[in-house]
Amino acid sequence: MDQIKEKRRSLDRIFDPASIAIVGASDSFDKVGGRVLASLIHNGFKGAIYPVNPSRTVLRGLPAYPDLEALPQAPDLAILAIPAKQVRGQIEQACRIGAGSVIIFTSGFAELDVEGAREQAVLTELARKHDVRLVGPNCLGIMNGMNGMIASSTVTMRERVLPAGRLAFVSQSGALATFWLMDILNRGLGVSKWVSTGNEADVDLSEVVEYLVEDPDTDVISLYVEGVRDGPRLRAAFARAAELRKPIVILKSGRSAAGAEAAASHTGALAGEDAVYSALFTQYGVCQVDSIREMIDVSRVLLTQKPSAGRRACIISLSGGAGALMTDQACRHGYEVPHISDALEAKLRPIIPSYVQVRNPIDLTDRIIIDIEMYRRSLELVMASGEYDAIFTFMAGRTPTLVAEARAASLELFPRWDGAYANVWQATVPDLPAELNAAGVLVFDEIPEAVRAVARTRDLAEVWANPPSPAIPPLGPNDESTLLSEQASKRLLVRRAALEVPEGILLAAGERAADCVTFAGPYAVKLQSPALPHKSEHGAIEIGIDTTAEVQVIADRMFAMAAATGLPVEGVLVEAMEKIEFEFLVGIRHDPVLGAFLTLGRGGVEVDVDPDVVQAFLPLTPDNIAAMMRRLRCWRLLDGFRGRPPAPIEELARAIARLGDLILENPEFAEVEINPLAVCRSGRVVVIDAAVRVNTAVMAAEAAARPDGQRAMRYEGAA
Amino acid sequence: MDQIKEKRRSLDRIFDPASIAIVGASDSFDKVGGRVLASLIHNGFKGAIYPVNPSRTVLRGLPAYPDLEALPQAPDLAILAIPAKQVRGQIEQACRIGAGSVIIFTSGFAELDVEGAREQAVLTELARKHDVRLVGPNCLGIMNGMNGMIASSTVTMRERVLPAGRLAFVSQSGALATFWLMDILNRGLGVSKWVSTGNEADVDLSEVVEYLVEDPDTDVISLYVEGVRDGPRLRAAFARAAELRKPIVILKSGRSAAGAEAAASHTGALAGEDAVYSALFTQYGVCQVDSIREMIDVSRVLLTQKPSAGRRACIISLSGGAGALMTDQACRHGYEVPHISDALEAKLRPIIPSYVQVRNPIDLTDRIIIDIEMYRRSLELVMASGEYDAIFTFMAGRTPTLVAEARAASLELFPRWDGAYANVWQATVPDLPAELNAAGVLVFDEIPEAVRAVARTRDLAEVWANPPSPAIPPLGPNDESTLLSEQASKRLLVRRAALEVPEGILLAAGERAADCVTFAGPYAVKLQSPALPHKSEHGAIEIGIDTTAEVQVIADRMFAMAAATGLPVEGVLVEAMEKIEFEFLVGIRHDPVLGAFLTLGRGGVEVDVDPDVVQAFLPLTPDNIAAMMRRLRCWRLLDGFRGRPPAPIEELARAIARLGDLILENPEFAEVEINPLAVCRSGRVVVIDAAVRVNTAVMAAEAAARPDGQRAMRYEGAA
Repeated sequence: MDQIKEKRRSLDRIFDPASIAIVGASDSFDKVGGRVLASLIHNGFKGAIYPVNPSRTVLRGLPAYPDLEALPQAPDLAILAIPAKQVRGQIEQACRIGAGSVIIFTSGFAELDVEGAREQAVLTELARKHDVRLVGPNCLGIMNGMNGMIASSTVTMRERVLPAGRLAFVSQSGALATFWLMDILNRGLGVSKWVSTGNEADVDLSEVVEYLVEDPDTDVISLYVEGVRDGPRLRAAFARAAELRKPIVILKSGRSAAGAEAAASHTGALAGEDAVYSALFTQYGVCQVDSIREMIDVSRVLLTQKPSAGRRACIISLSGGAGALMTDQACRHGYEVPHISDALEAKLRPIIPSYVQVRNPIDLTDRIIIDIEMYRRSLELVMASGEYDAIFTFMAGRTPTLVAEARAASLELFPRWDGAYANVWQATVPDLPAELNAAGVLVFDEIPEAVRAVARTRDLAEVWANPPSPAIPPLGPNDESTLLSEQASKRLLVRRAALEVPEGILLAAGERAADCVTFAGPYAVKLQSPALPHKSEHGAIEIGIDTTAEVQVIADRMFAMAAATGLPVEGVLVEAMEKIEFEFLVGIRHDPVLGAFLTLGRGGVEVDVDPDVVQAFLPLTPDNIAAMMRRLRCWRLLDGFRGRPPAPIEELARAIARLGDLILENPEFAEVEINPLAVCRSGRVVVIDAAVRVNTAVMAAEAAARPDGQRAMRYEGAA
Repeated sequence: MDQIKEKRRSLDRIFDPASIAIVGASDSFDKVGGRVLASLIHNGFKGAIYPVNPSRTVLRGLPAYPDLEALPQAPDLAILAIPAKQVRGQIEQACRIGAGSVIIFTSGFAELDVEGAREQAVLTELARKHDVRLVGPNCLGIMNGMNGMIASSTVTMRERVLPAGRLAFVSQSGALATFWLMDILNRGLGVSKWVSTGNEADVDLSEVVEYLVEDPDTDVISLYVEGVRDGPRLRAAFARAAELRKPIVILKSGRSAAGAEAAASHTGALAGEDAVYSALFTQYGVCQVDSIREMIDVSRVLLTQKPSAGRRACIISLSGGAGALMTDQACRHGYEVPHISDALEAKLRPIIPSYVQVRNPIDLTDRIIIDIEMYRRSLELVMASGEYDAIFTFMAGRTPTLVAEARAASLELFPRWDGAYANVWQATVPDLPAELNAAGVLVFDEIPEAVRAVARTRDLAEVWANPPSPAIPPLGPNDESTLLSEQASKRLLVRRAALEVPEGILLAAGERAADCVTFAGPYAVKLQSPALPHKSEHGAIEIGIDTTAEVQVIADRMFAMAAATGLPVEGVLVEAMEKIEFEFLVGIRHDPVLGAFLTLGRGGVEVDVDPDVVQAFLPLTPDNIAAMMRRLRCWRLLDGFRGRPPAPIEELARAIARLGDLILENPEFAEVEINPLAVCRSGRVVVIDAAVRVNTAVMAAEAAARPDGQRAMRYEGAA
């Protein structure tokens, strides 16, 4: 029974249905139900098609039925092309007859108003109760390029056949789904699956991605995303894709604060912060792009080339100027343009005109117009040399001999070449780029776009070689939480994560510093109040204090200030100051959609002034964390800068990984920020300042376990 | 006489000649000399045309002449379409008859080899002696869209008429000049002047830019640059363009180290560092682009819009997804997308469909297809509101009513709108973008390209409002120079620029620290040797030393180390350490092509680890320098961060401006680097470490003026 349920829940019955009912079918393409009927027939869909229309008996030569209950069998897929008011009734019928799935084009639900959202929730509940899958509402539907299954309301398919291909696209915007489709059709590319998810009442983007990752017809998945409903499921799908080495390209809107607001209003889904999403994509090797055009450019690269992590680029150009511009772009996108070896130079020398040096970029000069063999021969030599990971060529010309030779050489050589490449052709006959692209040999028309598209895919190889953890932790707590003071935060970190803090003591009002402070200075003196997260702005911190007498004066003043302003006070923390070699920011938060993530960066004021941080989602191994550190802009500083001892990366990474595991396993931690986590000259790794946010329930237990806030509380530095 | 000379030297006789001789003329377009002749006639050039060809009497209906000396008058312009070996003889003839100018297409000169460079130098000398201007050699020549003066060897002009326009292009690459021209012709744009400068034996890019800045036919100047020969002249032209508010767009190759090498080999010109050129362009409001396509996009913006510094963008879209993407791009390029006012919202509400909120981005929804007036009415209201500086629209659709209405509204509204804008149209009839663009209403086909092209022009308004100094100082010294030690550098800065240094003394070997060091610690102890620029890597610096006894131990060890390694030593500098609030890097260098420039940034290790610097060319006022400081990423830190006192920006700016003036006026300074220039807690602005490079002659004088290096030398901190 569970197996059957499982099968019924899968999306196979939507993408590859044996039978389709079209409720609201028509014989006019100008009506939504007519479009689907016409497109299914025009695209040669092989399954049963049941037009449903109470006022017709035949539509486009097929018998029509008055309603779903009159069908000869329960369809795998029912398509609703009807007004919003009729949708619930039809879903009820679909449930009664045991339809496998329903696509609802109709808008006027959650995207419209509160009432629409309520009605949508009713539909979802109904469908889930009967194991009927829902796509939409407010969507453009689904297409499958492999079987002619054109279940879409888009007018773009008028009298068109969707060419089969290895590229899938899932869009949370109907308009962008249309623009993508038009661009694909104009470029003569093929499609495996095309999905407009609409309001995602049931089937959401994450589930479709999960399905496409396992889809044998799909080699590359491209996504337009505004907001993610099921973050862990999407992350699991990304992890699986990395494991299977199936590339994903993503266009995520809402990257700016203003953009996020626009996207949120569009789908009702919560758009997360740009940095967090970008970190997710980087971690899972998902290629992020900025436009539909760039998405298709990058998809074309991934459809035709195996991502290559190598950075050694060779540039071949018939113009010195274009070669220089291409070199600039290659370097900007992280390639090196290393010199040609002596051996390769010796082989190229007889080919290249004698009046130019043999170097990288290789300048074929405009002699190529008469010496057309240069192109093939230089390409062959560069490819065979093993000296380069990527080849970028810039060519131009319309003379028939050059065009014919370049076409033949390109078609012969690039499909055999294992590295990355892109060709730019300008000022040539339009057939040449079209023919080469159709044959899977990539041609672009400008330099920056060509180099960028290839470069975007380079990081995939690195992620695939060392894929992220497939263990996706559940979403963390989002209950009410309380921010602890520094000393309470530190106590928690010492006890639970075995982190170290400076030697220190918590003075109560009236206690004598000279009696309590038994360790040597200089001292940091800090008023402790959960109501004062930024101590430096309120005179609640003094550092570099040399004597206990001075400590006393400062502590008395802090207590008096707190009493005068009515600040709740836990005491004044007096700590021994150590000499600090390195400072880090270590923060762990729960993104409500995507899960817990680590922010790691340069500590101290840098965080506010000029942040140098990287982010990644938990779980993370010490190796993962060490790799994050190497991505910091300040990495040189940590790696034995100017004869200084290097930072103890392994020890730091282990401590941070321990903290990450603690937070994943203990839902009482809502958030931790350590700024700085310091490496002292003594070699100790010490929490200098910290703020822990705990779920309020835990805070109550914490308060109960300690003496009341008015009394002095001993604060032990070492664990 | 001088006036006549001046007139003859000007480029008028090249761009607007009364008479042109074509040496090597032919009636075949497949020959270079034939192309020029055919193009001049086909483009309706009104001046006299003298074909020169000893074996013909008539060419294309014009009388042909055996040589230049047979012409009825000295031509304003002689075009040489002849083999390299014949060039010198023809130049000699041109000089003899008093021709105004010569264009040499022929290659095989400086770009080929040393011999070619020598021959080219002979031609230059010859021409200069006779006041004959030379363009080329190894160039594609010159075109003037205003008078049919097509003096170019490009095949692109075959049977084409160059349309007149307000856009000029100067290129140091013939190939890129061709690609630009083809793109311009394909887009139906017009041209004022088109120049391929080739080897720049005489007329160089800087002179052409200078000419175009004053050219009444040119509104926008676009440049492809590999290397600059006459930096001060180019800077003066840029300054004049800023004064005249004539925009310049530049594509500079050699931006990467590898790219610079490729460009240098191409033209033989020295390409400067990318950062220095970018600083120059930023300072003078020159728009930098990455490709020919982007150059033309930005030129189109500048031809049709007055640059607007405002950042408040309104986005109007028929798709929520596209609106969100457009918002992201606007924010990425420095725009704000602020909320619509209540007043504007009230006006828009009746227009916008009731099921979407009125907000920015304005979502017209796909209802626009039937409610076509929405586009015009929302545009009118936004334009009239005064709430926005820029408008970005995203539209799509092919229905004839929508297309007609959008065309009419666009043609009516955008030419009257004073702000910045760009329209993106996708999935529409091809005529619509073409017609709008032809009418000067900008349409792009993708979002990032549209927003970026407009954003690139935004900074111009700010530069024009406060143009850079028109006083371009002469190029500085490039003689042999010597690096001074820290103490010698500091002495020079104290004496000459009235900068302050910490209290300190220079100990000689054998001197007793306890006797000499009369000021309080803690101390910095630093071995002084001109051979040790990086003291920290050689144990030649110790800081935070508390007693003179410890100073003695350290100084003894340093002297011993120096003696053991044979290091030349000036002494050990002992300085009082002050508490430092802010650290800056201040560097002034002479770029050999562009002149002296200031580098200003965060000081200390940041310079090596994660540079945060800005650069600008001298002269600079204290106001200019304060504005540079505000552009640092760390500006927040300087501006009263977290209740700290702000950095004394005015005082710093005055000190740095003084240093800049000193270096401009005194050629003995080759380079100054102060790192850090510190603001101490005491409020003093102090040179903590410095390295001055002086011309070797001055260094000798300096050495003569002081006691010999072995003896102790008093080092006075205060000036």
